[in-house]
Amino acid sequence: MPELRKDPMMRRWVVMAPDRAKRPMQSIAAPLIAGTDFDPFAEGNEASTPPEILAYRSADSVANGPGWRVRVVPNKYPALQSEPSLETRREGIYEMMNGLGTHEVIIECPHNETNLSRLSVENVREVMAAYRERMADLKRDRRLVHALIFKNNGILAGASLPHSHSQLIASPVVPIAIWEEIQGALDFFNNQRRSIFDEMIQQELATGSRIVLDTPGFIAFCPYASRFSFETWILPKVQCSHFENISPKSIDELGHVLKEVLGKQERALGDPPYNYVLHSAPFDQPELPHFRWHFEIFPRLTRVAGFEWGSGFYINPVYPEDAAKKLRDASA
Amino acid sequence: MPELRKDPMMRRWVVMAPDRAKRPMQSIAAPLIAGTDFDPFAEGNEASTPPEILAYRSADSVANGPGWRVRVVPNKYPALQSEPSLETRREGIYEMMNGLGTHEVIIECPHNETNLSRLSVENVREVMAAYRERMADLKRDRRLVHALIFKNNGILAGASLPHSHSQLIASPVVPIAIWEEIQGALDFFNNQRRSIFDEMIQQELATGSRIVLDTPGFIAFCPYASRFSFETWILPKVQCSHFENISPKSIDELGHVLKEVLGKQERALGDPPYNYVLHSAPFDQPELPHFRWHFEIFPRLTRVAGFEWGSGFYINPVYPEDAAKKLRDASA
Repeated sequence: MPELRKDPMMRRWVVMAPDRAKRPMQSIAAPLIAGTDFDPFAEGNEASTPPEILAYRSADSVANGPGWRVRVVPNKYPALQSEPSLETRREGIYEMMNGLGTHEVIIECPHNETNLSRLSVENVREVMAAYRERMADLKRDRRLVHALIFKNNGILAGASLPHSHSQLIASPVVPIAIWEEIQGALDFFNNQRRSIFDEMIQQELATGSRIVLDTPGFIAFCPYASRFSFETWILPKVQCSHFENISPKSIDELGHVLKEVLGKQERALGDPPYNYVLHSAPFDQPELPHFRWHFEIFPRLTRVAGFEWGSGFYINPVYPEDAAKKLRDASA
Repeated sequence: MPELRKDPMMRRWVVMAPDRAKRPMQSIAAPLIAGTDFDPFAEGNEASTPPEILAYRSADSVANGPGWRVRVVPNKYPALQSEPSLETRREGIYEMMNGLGTHEVIIECPHNETNLSRLSVENVREVMAAYRERMADLKRDRRLVHALIFKNNGILAGASLPHSHSQLIASPVVPIAIWEEIQGALDFFNNQRRSIFDEMIQQELATGSRIVLDTPGFIAFCPYASRFSFETWILPKVQCSHFENISPKSIDELGHVLKEVLGKQERALGDPPYNYVLHSAPFDQPELPHFRWHFEIFPRLTRVAGFEWGSGFYINPVYPEDAAKKLRDASA
């Protein structure tokens, strides 16, 4: 039974999820094998996942059978799971709650493709639409206050299966990194009466050197203080704090932008392992003028070691200006 | 030339250190080779490191020659380095400073041993004494406000050489993780009029289930909200915020405790890759009654993936009570 524990000093929540240890290949000490030939996420193998929560499929197909293009299922080894109610408990200075939440897998294509960048643009758009639809649906559960969508691509980035997929974890608490971003953005807003996201976009477009891609509705750029080599953010130009409120037109443009950026990364860096996360405002907050949803993409080129863990201080061997130039130049 | 850049939203500093890219084997995508047979840290190979800053050596030996037991040298690929003065600059919303600081390597033994746990207890005590002595020396440079000591043991934990060593980075800013710990500890102190470290020790000793080792001066335990499987902290029982103020008697006991804890980890988990960090209060602060220096040790058993990076929310598949029991039971 998963449980959430709060660090009394750092106010950081940790999910204790012993069932996760049952996953195949959870140890980096284990040999890095590519998995068996069997692909539980492929079309035709629907019986090897829990029943689907959402699928975009042809009109003549049936649930949990073939004929789908994008499919969302519960994670078989969930970090958080359905519980009757949220329960909290204290033990002296320590605080915990039960592991209420959801952990879903977004299977991004029916065939065994390993990188979202190689799916058709229509396919990537449907993945973005599935993200939006799942978040809008989960928002209706008042016990959940946040959903984080993320992708682990490649074994060295934490994936246990090669078939292109992403994950969604919805939780009864707002993750600390999201809170700190929102708080930092609010402080900036209170001081400057301007959104830090608008300021960043304006300064990045004026400078130009960190831009990876500039489209009517989005910019992709390597942040000034990138923690990781080739870290890239995708930011909408128009204010919107909650991803679930994105317009259908923006979804289509985002599909194109994400495919392009991941393709550039693949061409520039040779299909590296990578992670991305989608940061969006908490469900229980109204539209926040100071915060904006965005993607943060990190290729895993260097090992993160003791210094970074221990300090929150990062060492990045590649200037973001150099990274952005290399990504800009990596055209199809 | 390294430079430090501040993230305008997260107030997190990132070191841009292009020289670090020249290190051998900085990419996780590269094959995981064990290095060449040549050991630049071994006795007799002193010429292959920069000249020593400190060495504990026999009275009849000479600097940068054989005859030492523990030796401290500048890192050949420094993240921060000596600069004439600290310079800061703003570019619109962005802020930077030059990469003033030091980056040192503590070579823990003259022979090619790969794990501190297998050194003699006298040797480990001298490593602890070298930590203390370097911090006390760097504290005299008023441009530096903090030193972080850390260890990357094993290639999968970020080490590029197998010979047992640790590192020290002294910087003109306090790393955000240290600030947040101190701030969290201060809030607790202001609310409860008690040190959170005293409370933790009292509760851990009363509960018992998370204790790994209990000696007259120290406890080693798996924290209630451990982020990582088998995460272990070593905490002095007597208040002391600055590691450089530790007594010689405590250094001796600490050497024993650290060797024991790392030995338990090695026996319980089969010599896993691991990191540790030594958290200590900033140089420019007086003794802080609410904060205490401590070691945080993390074996690298699972891959940290997109979810953790993106959320600051950790998933740990092993309850700290189960981890502590396994470590307690792993006697020599």
